[in-house]
Amino acid sequence: MRILVINPNTTLSMTEKIGDAARSVAAPGTEITAVSPDKGPVSIEGHYDEAYCVPGVVERAIQGSVEGYDGFVLACFDDPGLHSCRTAVAQPVVGICEAAMHAATMIASSFSVVSTLARSVPVIEDLGHRYGMERRMKRVWAADIPVLALEDEGSSAREKVRDAVLRAVEADQSESVILGCAGMADLTTWLTHETGVPVLDGVACAVKMIEGLVSLGLGSSKVGGYAWPRAKTYTGDFARYAPSGSA
Amino acid sequence: MRILVINPNTTLSMTEKIGDAARSVAAPGTEITAVSPDKGPVSIEGHYDEAYCVPGVVERAIQGSVEGYDGFVLACFDDPGLHSCRTAVAQPVVGICEAAMHAATMIASSFSVVSTLARSVPVIEDLGHRYGMERRMKRVWAADIPVLALEDEGSSAREKVRDAVLRAVEADQSESVILGCAGMADLTTWLTHETGVPVLDGVACAVKMIEGLVSLGLGSSKVGGYAWPRAKTYTGDFARYAPSGSA
Amino acid sequence: MRILVINPNTTLSMTEKIGDAARSVAAPGTEITAVSPDKGPVSIEGHYDEAYCVPGVVERAIQGSVEGYDGFVLACFDDPGLHSCRTAVAQPVVGICEAAMHAATMIASSFSVVSTLARSVPVIEDLGHRYGMERRMKRVWAADIPVLALEDEGSSAREKVRDAVLRAVEADQSESVILGCAGMADLTTWLTHETGVPVLDGVACAVKMIEGLVSLGLGSSKVGGYAWPRAKTYTGDFARYAPSGSA
Amino acid sequence: MRILVINPNTTLSMTEKIGDAARSVAAPGTEITAVSPDKGPVSIEGHYDEAYCVPGVVERAIQGSVEGYDGFVLACFDDPGLHSCRTAVAQPVVGICEAAMHAATMIASSFSVVSTLARSVPVIEDLGHRYGMERRMKRVWAADIPVLALEDEGSSAREKVRDAVLRAVEADQSESVILGCAGMADLTTWLTHETGVPVLDGVACAVKMIEGLVSLGLGSSKVGGYAWPRAKTYTGDFARYAPSGSA
Amino acid sequence: MRILVINPNTTLSMTEKIGDAARSVAAPGTEITAVSPDKGPVSIEGHYDEAYCVPGVVERAIQGSVEGYDGFVLACFDDPGLHSCRTAVAQPVVGICEAAMHAATMIASSFSVVSTLARSVPVIEDLGHRYGMERRMKRVWAADIPVLALEDEGSSAREKVRDAVLRAVEADQSESVILGCAGMADLTTWLTHETGVPVLDGVACAVKMIEGLVSLGLGSSKVGGYAWPRAKTYTGDFARYAPSGSA
Amino acid sequence: MRILVINPNTTLSMTEKIGDAARSVAAPGTEITAVSPDKGPVSIEGHYDEAYCVPGVVERAIQGSVEGYDGFVLACFDDPGLHSCRTAVAQPVVGICEAAMHAATMIASSFSVVSTLARSVPVIEDLGHRYGMERRMKRVWAADIPVLALEDEGSSAREKVRDAVLRAVEADQSESVILGCAGMADLTTWLTHETGVPVLDGVACAVKMIEGLVSLGLGSSKVGGYAWPRAKTYTGDFARYAPSGSA
Repeated sequence: MRILVINPNTTLSMTEKIGDAARSVAAPGTEITAVSPDKGPVSIEGHYDEAYCVPGVVERAIQGSVEGYDGFVLACFDDPGLHSCRTAVAQPVVGICEAAMHAATMIASSFSVVSTLARSVPVIEDLGHRYGMERRMKRVWAADIPVLALEDEGSSAREKVRDAVLRAVEADQSESVILGCAGMADLTTWLTHETGVPVLDGVACAVKMIEGLVSLGLGSSKVGGYAWPRAKTYTGDFARYAPSGSA
Repeated sequence: MRILVINPNTTLSMTEKIGDAARSVAAPGTEITAVSPDKGPVSIEGHYDEAYCVPGVVERAIQGSVEGYDGFVLACFDDPGLHSCRTAVAQPVVGICEAAMHAATMIASSFSVVSTLARSVPVIEDLGHRYGMERRMKRVWAADIPVLALEDEGSSAREKVRDAVLRAVEADQSESVILGCAGMADLTTWLTHETGVPVLDGVACAVKMIEGLVSLGLGSSKVGGYAWPRAKTYTGDFARYAPSGSA
Repeated sequence: MRILVINPNTTLSMTEKIGDAARSVAAPGTEITAVSPDKGPVSIEGHYDEAYCVPGVVERAIQGSVEGYDGFVLACFDDPGLHSCRTAVAQPVVGICEAAMHAATMIASSFSVVSTLARSVPVIEDLGHRYGMERRMKRVWAADIPVLALEDEGSSAREKVRDAVLRAVEADQSESVILGCAGMADLTTWLTHETGVPVLDGVACAVKMIEGLVSLGLGSSKVGGYAWPRAKTYTGDFARYAPSGSA
Repeated sequence: MRILVINPNTTLSMTEKIGDAARSVAAPGTEITAVSPDKGPVSIEGHYDEAYCVPGVVERAIQGSVEGYDGFVLACFDDPGLHSCRTAVAQPVVGICEAAMHAATMIASSFSVVSTLARSVPVIEDLGHRYGMERRMKRVWAADIPVLALEDEGSSAREKVRDAVLRAVEADQSESVILGCAGMADLTTWLTHETGVPVLDGVACAVKMIEGLVSLGLGSSKVGGYAWPRAKTYTGDFARYAPSGSA
Repeated sequence: MRILVINPNTTLSMTEKIGDAARSVAAPGTEITAVSPDKGPVSIEGHYDEAYCVPGVVERAIQGSVEGYDGFVLACFDDPGLHSCRTAVAQPVVGICEAAMHAATMIASSFSVVSTLARSVPVIEDLGHRYGMERRMKRVWAADIPVLALEDEGSSAREKVRDAVLRAVEADQSESVILGCAGMADLTTWLTHETGVPVLDGVACAVKMIEGLVSLGLGSSKVGGYAWPRAKTYTGDFARYAPSGSA
Repeated sequence: MRILVINPNTTLSMTEKIGDAARSVAAPGTEITAVSPDKGPVSIEGHYDEAYCVPGVVERAIQGSVEGYDGFVLACFDDPGLHSCRTAVAQPVVGICEAAMHAATMIASSFSVVSTLARSVPVIEDLGHRYGMERRMKRVWAADIPVLALEDEGSSAREKVRDAVLRAVEADQSESVILGCAGMADLTTWLTHETGVPVLDGVACAVKMIEGLVSLGLGSSKVGGYAWPRAKTYTGDFARYAPSGSA
């Protein structure tokens, strides 16, 4: 099975790290390709960046569908473009936030999330509510680091994440912790050891979810919210994105 | 006060109709300008179209901010780009779905929504939930018409909307009905008479909400989820959308 | 348009202050009249006072309807008599708690409320829940001051309110703060400056909401919960309040 | 133990029927007195009537407290004045709506409510939400009869109630039905036989709840929302209701 | 009326204490018998113990039904076997957790729970949600004592419970506190005095609830979730528990 | 990896069918063993049967842990013993109800469930609520067939399931359907073709979920609700189930 992992930002070092994280948990028969869109923000920190990563993400998913990929992972914790991608392709699409939250509820009564910046906290809180997690999600914390600091080995970003995770376990009495940024994917083992509770990374969880959906032959329902886009004209610079109305 | 009403789709006849609807309820001192983005779908029907209208909507809001507009209305019932716009400008931004729902709860114990196509139903249900309306929103109905049929005088679209509204009042025992598409803005008076319950149009409600926020000096909070976008690089075709990090 | 702002308590200095606050934000064509009922508590602090302010509030609204007012604002943060007034008059009626909460959600992801006494906290929490705000309302705080201390220039009430607002912003990470008492209406500008987040006053918000509803021709639905009172006998001292069954 | 059952309306034939219903289920040592306020509506049908029954209800509860009653039942399904009474007296106070809903959840997975008029449906829905019953309360039905028709032996009111109950069981698949009006208290046995599911009357349930609370020595908490009313002036006709600030 | 109080654990000293607590609040005509199952855990601390107490609890309830008991109380705060017992017998069955929570909401706007060990906290949180208490239940605390420490007079268990109760009142601003273990039944009077808020014990509350249901003739609905078990074969050691399909 | 699929009932033909269903979707490296407990009901239809299947399920899971299985699937749609098993073993445990619901939300905006008998409907509704699915789960339907009729080739059970699935899609406008019984595992392909929406079987979904958790090294958190059982005495027939206090 071939899975396309789309890093919604355009920082290629992070795309590589995400690809490595995905490959490290993929099943033997799973081929992982990690890509970024060819346009958009180098990091996604809040609502504005989300607006400008989604077109490239959806475009890349459609291209991946043409290329024959069997399923898609969106590797940004805000799950940007998730519903649009499900509309645009026949194959299943999984976001790393939803994947981590679903997984956490199957191993623990509760979880906390540790994210990067304060501006992402309400975004994740809203996703948690949308996914039905309000009784499991104890609190969303910000480690107070920019996303790309995680790419900078000299920064104190990892220590700040660890401190936030420890604070979350202590203050929330949470039984598990989710790392709320794809750029933290390489910290799970270390932080599980540091904290004594399971620490989940969304990239890894999403790979397993998408492998499962693909092998079950489950794609997005084409009745209702994820029905194929209707054929219509798009104007201006976006004319080329107009849906043709067939799959 | 100068209000920019952004029709997120690029069908100019609909933009004009929305502008007329907005002007017809605007206060004496309010100047309404109705525009469309210069790129994107001619109608917004589901998640895919949403992805490709948002960049133009946000861009147009920022341009409007530079042009000195005091507030913004997003005139598509899916409220696309609402949170991104709030991040991108200092002035208040109101979506027509949220405006209509807030207004409905101040005049009735419950409401139903009549939208266009089935694919929009889960989108509106999710917005209703996000806005805290799950106990007031009885049901979302689809009139089973494409958005642009509302622009076609020869179509039976208006009759289908009326029939759906009557069905909603009868079946849901709702005390009010919200028209779930900006293209229905000219039907409210007629349908209020036909049904005997208040029928609300989001464009009108949003104009009054934005007038209120502007005159109170209330813009989006710049602490947390709507903080200014951080300065960073955007790559590829979207390089020009990169935030500079100052307002 | 003529708006009657009803201060549900009978402290006239507070009624004047509320009237001033309302007038300071009213649109050019809006005429504000601020009144108190001719009977009832001098301040409303909890459920008991509420019981004895409501009859006078509803009576005053009906009188206002006869006098030709176009809309009504109830200027106590417990929104006392809100639903009864909507039943009793054709014109729209807005409470200051609901108005502030609706407004806050259009400019911020979350809000906290700062009220007067601890006994009001569960009252406001229940209103927040009724209005669908449980995911936006972070916490309701009591500044621990009686309502009328706000009328006493020599008291430390203002400082206590400020301290509570600062505490709320710090502890709840809220993106906005609502002042939970009509008597705090004159503190919003000062406190917005002190805190750096938008501080909302319900009186101002309600004036804009009622202006909006009036200009849209939206009154309370007369189908269902706000149907006209049925004609019937009232006995004893309250005989004069018996509804005649016509509007 | 002496229990005062307050019928919030002033129709004495109904008060007698309620008193009989209460006595028929009271424990051997319980003395039931059923009274009406000396002022107010002859029936309570919606928000307006509620406003004008509450002062008399609270007044009667306070008088009952002075007379040495050990607990209070409010025998109108809208639970009018419930929270005000809890503030005003030391003894426990139970409403018939809350009592029936709590009881229903202990014998069935779900319930429907059959009330009188459509205008009461949103009132009861809101109470159900306030009491945390949204997942147990399948639907609130109106039998489409005025409250006092239940006092008129020649009317078809009983048959309409039965038909509504049967409809509710069939349509909602509810495991129990609550009669949503104190005037239906004499129909429970008959309707349980007709339907095959438990049919609950709030008056009976509330008598048992108040007996329980009284015998456990549990009165309303005087910390927070039900704290004693603060001493203050009431003006005009209501001066005599001013709280003295002591119990 | 004869009530069987089933202590789901098999520590007989605790069964006696529970029986004493039940008798101390029972009505004159109520005969209380307190028993334990003949098999199972000596204390119930978390999900595992629950699995192995339920068969004995249900068996004992059925035996009690044969013996002519009129109603059943399950005296463990996890309410283990509650729904199974309701299916298995015609008489009403009440759990001490649900009873205490229902009672608390009739005397206070909010409550906190003080339980024994941290592992019980998510169990009680889930029960609270199931019973619709998420808006009333402020927090569940663990006093950090094993259940049987409450039976050991020399231990500091009582002091730890008191400390946790005081902490809950202070931190949560709760208006009442529920003791989350049947073994704390003898501490309510003392802790009500220590804290100034009503402290509720589930055993006492459940006795009053079951007395009420029995005297109203209300048993579990036999339509839907609590329908009689269908006749079928059980295999192996559990063959003797197979339902015969008649009551 | 070795997965133990536990059919909580003791009907071996059904266990075989479940095992086949599991193997048909298992990854190449996954070895599936399907077993039943050595004691308990031949089918699980409601709360009573649940009580008597759980001890055998938990016992079998513990034995499986000793035998070196890497993860566990509980193959009854009521998810009986799920939390107890998570406490009892170190490896991850997944229920088929939760697995199907989590999967459905990743491919569709909504789902309906088709179960066997009416008595199971409230059980599944409660699970849906516990798993946070109240906004995704449109309705739970009963096909009105006993569980074991699905094992009887001559019965009309399959047709009844199909009819119920078609009814659900039509009436609920659901975008997917979950089969609410492990005995329906062989019907998914057929019913997906019949209905045009994805039809999900919990056994298949749970196999993929457990494969994912195992390969990520995620077991149940041993902090909080799933902490190891404390060492203690169990009395009577259940003495042998007493936890030793070590893993």
